[in-house]
Amino acid sequence: MSESKDIKVMENIMDKNDAIALDTQKALSDKGIFCINVMGAPGAGKTTTITALAKRLSRQVTVIEGDIESDIDTKALNAIGVPTVQINTHGACHLDSPSIAQAIDGIGGINPGYLFIENIGNLVCPAEFNIGEHMKLLIVSAADGSDKPYKYPLAFEKADLILVNKYDLAALADFDEDYFLQGIRRLHPDAKVIMVSAKKGEGMDEAAKWLEDRAF
Amino acid sequence: MSESKDIKVMENIMDKNDAIALDTQKALSDKGIFCINVMGAPGAGKTTTITALAKRLSRQVTVIEGDIESDIDTKALNAIGVPTVQINTHGACHLDSPSIAQAIDGIGGINPGYLFIENIGNLVCPAEFNIGEHMKLLIVSAADGSDKPYKYPLAFEKADLILVNKYDLAALADFDEDYFLQGIRRLHPDAKVIMVSAKKGEGMDEAAKWLEDRAF
Repeated sequence: MSESKDIKVMENIMDKNDAIALDTQKALSDKGIFCINVMGAPGAGKTTTITALAKRLSRQVTVIEGDIESDIDTKALNAIGVPTVQINTHGACHLDSPSIAQAIDGIGGINPGYLFIENIGNLVCPAEFNIGEHMKLLIVSAADGSDKPYKYPLAFEKADLILVNKYDLAALADFDEDYFLQGIRRLHPDAKVIMVSAKKGEGMDEAAKWLEDRAF
Repeated sequence: MSESKDIKVMENIMDKNDAIALDTQKALSDKGIFCINVMGAPGAGKTTTITALAKRLSRQVTVIEGDIESDIDTKALNAIGVPTVQINTHGACHLDSPSIAQAIDGIGGINPGYLFIENIGNLVCPAEFNIGEHMKLLIVSAADGSDKPYKYPLAFEKADLILVNKYDLAALADFDEDYFLQGIRRLHPDAKVIMVSAKKGEGMDEAAKWLEDRAF
């Protein structure tokens, strides 16, 4: 194919994706379900963070769990009583709105409350696709260093809430908080940033409160 | 497009990519350049590892530095005297063989020795594309947890050498080494795995020696 045809095909795919995402978002709103697209690199601590939030939020939490392979995270969430639907993409590097619409149809019914969609562990591709969410939550690990906003700007530009997880390892990993925050501020001045340890619980009360205040 | 047309287009892209990769590999071999495709998630420590190897290897090291945005890593490598060529993909989530062939042409000439190609920080997509390398080096951070081989199998299946970086943080991050190694062994029994701290130097002599023994 020629390059212009490639671009045209990509534009069509993105338009179709956005249209389905908007339909999903409206249908969830009508049912009183506030949907959060959870993005982050592999090992940022997405499942641990969802677990910590589920324990603190006042309404029912349901999770759609996106993984290339395995149901490790689904088992962890089920173990604490969170209803979870597994999507395995078998190679695909992000979730898209048709696969989410299909998963929601498959569930039959979701209780009003919060629906977390844990995206594929990838700091690049998921940020390009709306999947029906009301907000985007980005989780980054302090142990992965402070230059991420400069190297992977789109995810930081799109996120409403950014949780800097494993903050207890920040000093050991030479995490430069000022440099990190400067990198976010030039991309997205209004993003809320909270330093947390999802495993130990630090910062998670504040994160849950921020979500509750924000949700309808 | 229909699904079968989508698949056909993808197959054509992959065939073309592999053909160019093979040409690049042959051209590099003829010039005495051993090429290493460096893969890993964001924050795994790819640049720090290349730096630690460059200090230990007996022949000239050149780097092609792949980033979505920024030249932070190129500046770090230049600061220690390693000649580096920056590729910014402006969104694309992996390097492919045409972009590498073009970058090598652009350099004019590379000294015999080692050519490291630092791929985009992404544990998913780069593993699908040969780019002209003689071997694949995967770097994972112990701070990102021990379930990665189960969740992101392709990168572990394809890697010749796997360096588990930030091993000094393993205990703090509850890194389960047996579980991690089991996950690799069922995918790729012959992969060489070394625990390292690229920043502190632990394990890096062994890694450099393994590379020297392997290279032509």
